Amino acid sequence: MILPIVFIFSLLYSSHALVQDFCVADYTAPVGPAGYSCKKPAKVTADDFAFSGLGIPGNTSNIIKAAVTPAFDAQFPGLNGLGISAARLDLAVGGVIPLHTHPAASELLIVVQGSICAGFIASDNSVYLKTLKRGDIMVFPQGLLHFQINAAPVPALAVVTFSSPNPGLQILDFALFKSSFPTELIVKTTFLDEAQVKKLKGVLGGSG
Amino acid sequence: MILPIVFIFSLLYSSHALVQDFCVADYTAPVGPAGYSCKKPAKVTADDFAFSGLGIPGNTSNIIKAAVTPAFDAQFPGLNGLGISAARLDLAVGGVIPLHTHPAASELLIVVQGSICAGFIASDNSVYLKTLKRGDIMVFPQGLLHFQINAAPVPALAVVTFSSPNPGLQILDFALFKSSFPTELIVKTTFLDEAQVKKLKGVLGGSG
Amino acid sequence: MILPIVFIFSLLYSSHALVQDFCVADYTAPVGPAGYSCKKPAKVTADDFAFSGLGIPGNTSNIIKAAVTPAFDAQFPGLNGLGISAARLDLAVGGVIPLHTHPAASELLIVVQGSICAGFIASDNSVYLKTLKRGDIMVFPQGLLHFQINAAPVPALAVVTFSSPNPGLQILDFALFKSSFPTELIVKTTFLDEAQVKKLKGVLGGSG
Amino acid sequence: MILPIVFIFSLLYSSHALVQDFCVADYTAPVGPAGYSCKKPAKVTADDFAFSGLGIPGNTSNIIKAAVTPAFDAQFPGLNGLGISAARLDLAVGGVIPLHTHPAASELLIVVQGSICAGFIASDNSVYLKTLKRGDIMVFPQGLLHFQINAAPVPALAVVTFSSPNPGLQILDFALFKSSFPTELIVKTTFLDEAQVKKLKGVLGGSG
Amino acid sequence: MILPIVFIFSLLYSSHALVQDFCVADYTAPVGPAGYSCKKPAKVTADDFAFSGLGIPGNTSNIIKAAVTPAFDAQFPGLNGLGISAARLDLAVGGVIPLHTHPAASELLIVVQGSICAGFIASDNSVYLKTLKRGDIMVFPQGLLHFQINAAPVPALAVVTFSSPNPGLQILDFALFKSSFPTELIVKTTFLDEAQVKKLKGVLGGSG
Amino acid sequence: MILPIVFIFSLLYSSHALVQDFCVADYTAPVGPAGYSCKKPAKVTADDFAFSGLGIPGNTSNIIKAAVTPAFDAQFPGLNGLGISAARLDLAVGGVIPLHTHPAASELLIVVQGSICAGFIASDNSVYLKTLKRGDIMVFPQGLLHFQINAAPVPALAVVTFSSPNPGLQILDFALFKSSFPTELIVKTTFLDEAQVKKLKGVLGGSG
Repeated sequence: MILPIVFIFSLLYSSHALVQDFCVADYTAPVGPAGYSCKKPAKVTADDFAFSGLGIPGNTSNIIKAAVTPAFDAQFPGLNGLGISAARLDLAVGGVIPLHTHPAASELLIVVQGSICAGFIASDNSVYLKTLKRGDIMVFPQGLLHFQINAAPVPALAVVTFSSPNPGLQILDFALFKSSFPTELIVKTTFLDEAQVKKLKGVLGGSG
Repeated sequence: MILPIVFIFSLLYSSHALVQDFCVADYTAPVGPAGYSCKKPAKVTADDFAFSGLGIPGNTSNIIKAAVTPAFDAQFPGLNGLGISAARLDLAVGGVIPLHTHPAASELLIVVQGSICAGFIASDNSVYLKTLKRGDIMVFPQGLLHFQINAAPVPALAVVTFSSPNPGLQILDFALFKSSFPTELIVKTTFLDEAQVKKLKGVLGGSG
Repeated sequence: MILPIVFIFSLLYSSHALVQDFCVADYTAPVGPAGYSCKKPAKVTADDFAFSGLGIPGNTSNIIKAAVTPAFDAQFPGLNGLGISAARLDLAVGGVIPLHTHPAASELLIVVQGSICAGFIASDNSVYLKTLKRGDIMVFPQGLLHFQINAAPVPALAVVTFSSPNPGLQILDFALFKSSFPTELIVKTTFLDEAQVKKLKGVLGGSG
Repeated sequence: MILPIVFIFSLLYSSHALVQDFCVADYTAPVGPAGYSCKKPAKVTADDFAFSGLGIPGNTSNIIKAAVTPAFDAQFPGLNGLGISAARLDLAVGGVIPLHTHPAASELLIVVQGSICAGFIASDNSVYLKTLKRGDIMVFPQGLLHFQINAAPVPALAVVTFSSPNPGLQILDFALFKSSFPTELIVKTTFLDEAQVKKLKGVLGGSG
Repeated sequence: MILPIVFIFSLLYSSHALVQDFCVADYTAPVGPAGYSCKKPAKVTADDFAFSGLGIPGNTSNIIKAAVTPAFDAQFPGLNGLGISAARLDLAVGGVIPLHTHPAASELLIVVQGSICAGFIASDNSVYLKTLKRGDIMVFPQGLLHFQINAAPVPALAVVTFSSPNPGLQILDFALFKSSFPTELIVKTTFLDEAQVKKLKGVLGGSG
Repeated sequence: MILPIVFIFSLLYSSHALVQDFCVADYTAPVGPAGYSCKKPAKVTADDFAFSGLGIPGNTSNIIKAAVTPAFDAQFPGLNGLGISAARLDLAVGGVIPLHTHPAASELLIVVQGSICAGFIASDNSVYLKTLKRGDIMVFPQGLLHFQINAAPVPALAVVTFSSPNPGLQILDFALFKSSFPTELIVKTTFLDEAQVKKLKGVLGGSG
């Protein structure tokens, strides 16, 4: 006959056992270099580990005919501290995700619908370009400039995932032309013509 | 007038500059704790960063009515050292990905088609269960037992990504019943009945 | 003659110098992905770096004839953030530490008394078994299923240490049969017979 | 009387003790994700840990009136695996280090001579600008676009150090205009005018 | 005609988006193993990323004729979490930075003025010595005993940087002779003569 | 009836699947910053994960009446890459492990027999001392000077474990007096009397 196993490992869950297998973000507590503070385990539910936002198509009625919907640790608390996150890319016909970097993560792109032309540029100025179809995946190493373009006359859908819960996103055009980066400094540090800079600042709303 | 910028950063790419922005796997050279050796940059092409295998439906004509197609660093050389990888899950009607762990990575599941019931169990024996529909995502913290089941009367398709290029995969039933783990030790360390162990070893082909 | 060195490095210990060589856990402050908040240095004492709990034999009067006494960061504040922790294993005659994993750490077992049969199973379903005697050590790579059994007719004592201050501990039987994991889902995801599942839930107190 | 301590720790340096306190790069052996293979300890000399190249002024007779001299692990073998590296910046009057990123490292700038205007742009398009004088330091967080400009009518000299032995360097203008990035794709992914792209490709020698 | 791009990535900066590209230290909030809590992004300014303290010569009117001025995360909030820090070394004629270690970082020394003799000792008791002149750099692997001495009859100036924002600094003489380390224990654990220990405690102010 | 599960996950173990759950050291292949190259999985056996050397008492017939027997990755191939290692300390009556550091790891001491007085010194020169009895444990944070002394009139036995497979070991007396560190430099960088230095060099065999 088998008797009940009672309390044998009870010490393992002492009153201080706040640090567990995960650290669901508590958005009301301090943030540190490794991420958000952890919600108390007793308050964690299955909903903290799931996120529905990527099921909703992004609005592509804009100049780039594209939309990015993030599921980073700031939106999806269960990711906090776990080294992974995701985003949804919607690209209408002619849609483009402009040249950008993720300062703190590598990216893995998964084409779910349609066809996407993607590429990145390495430190030695080599350019790596691929046209991807449904089911294809492509990796963009950490911190390098890359882009995605709809490569077909139908809408494209992709999911991208990142090697960090907080990958960051620096869109080149926004950094230059939607910011307060002074025109004079942009011209000096990029060799772009002043007229070009002013034109794009006009479009994107940059100041300076 | 603007003159050519010649050689200004030429020192940056000396003859020893083998370590770059990425480390595409060279499967013929030694492997270390951090991954495969790097292919020489001159031999790297865009194809190293893309992978088509996940576009092909897995064969679900098996007992679990499911298939897993990996894109880990062993299959996809461009992932090496980059902290991310992926796999495709095909679940026919009634399909199940049995209880398993990834010893070295957290997992992010993205439902592409159909509906999936997924869950994991934490160290304190809490169970976190969710039924996910197309577009929903769920995260499974590193090293914890989890599973996926097709939750609808139509086939389901999901992509999972991992916080490591080499996440590992330990399927509980295979570890116990498709291995050489001696029946006597299984009984002692799991409290399963010997008859149960022998029955599943018979099905899965375990020895011992 | 040698004169006093006064204040030469005084700037090094400014009023903000709260982050030091260590980060003793303050259990009353927020917890983050990297561990507990740090106690203020002025309140740290030598006692924070020592722990006596492993000197006390665990109570092995239970069904597994074994006991685990942890010294993780939740019990031993000086370990916080330092990448190491420990536990004491007492195994009476016939004692067993059932199949389990540590989701976030590798384990090193040191046999202090008696003899222990230990083993782990790898992702490829290889089984690695060893019978260890006093003074022998064995390593269990991160996240893999493993177990320990008293291999002699005398009590055994071991110390295990981990490559994390918070290794986690997922005991297979508890995850399945001492939790609220629904019987139907267990059967589907493990291929165990329903009767087997219900029997062990009865013993261990699982619900669902 | 004190007797010689002989061989007490002799086991510590067994025949396999190749991994030591450091891993000086062996440029003739395989490279992995964590860096170069290690030179055998017996062949390591003090010279491996020192580097004289930064003592030599860079040639600023070029369009940007500036020069970068790197001391990364590819040039300085003792840095391999140690998490740090350096470079020398020479900025003649009017000199500019154009907008660039380091994909895998944060940068710390130390002004040694003259005055430098430096800045970076964050993911939220905030611009952080400072004019630095001799002795001032500034940090540029990992992966973000940044630049340095000589801010005075005399030459400037700076040393920059990085949080990686292999920080990488992606110069925006080179990535766009000195590469084979097709003009059509540049226009689509940056909104720059085609004429602007062609003009800069002409200057910098880009193809496509 | 080009229309404004409005709100396309607006989701990226949700109300919870506190974790960004950097984590400027908030000295008033809890500290954790990974560093200080982050200042709210809205309160961060360019001044947080620059530090002027290293422009000020240290006071070398002391027994070692040398001074160390740190720019660690405790002094320079922008470094928090970024894996790098710095310090200024002033060495008057005859100046010495006594034997010391940084428990948590490798060090890179850059000679800015004069000449410095520097060295470190490895675990196998090998000694690596170099005399460095202006512009030379030298690396000291993590945790090893090292020193710097002015090697010329003129003042020397160096900047050192570290592979951690909080490298720590353990000066051997201070640890032994400026602490409360009991003389009896020092004698037992160093084999120094008691008279020698008492003499240096007298000079440096140690107790015990 | 249950049918065999055949090949369902067969893709997971492709011909390139050399990187697995562990990386047992291959001492004949290159070493990198992350450790030794991995032995091919087919050649790995259970013996690679166990080590018997710590069961053998060290020889304490020496001046310090103590012995250290290491089980680092250089001696115990299964530890390679796993973030943990161990050593055995034998302390005869009056035995001492002299002041030392581990440059790359925190240490956890477990007293197995007898009583040990242990201590460490922090960067701020605080001294943390404890007298430990059988079963007590103590942690020594990374890179800090520490020691162990037999605190009772009977032999003591301890096991120490480390947060790295290759913690390093720098014994202060050996670094100073058993090396080729020139006497003149030792005197300058430690303030020890020349006579003291020469005396200890005589005992320990140092040159210079």
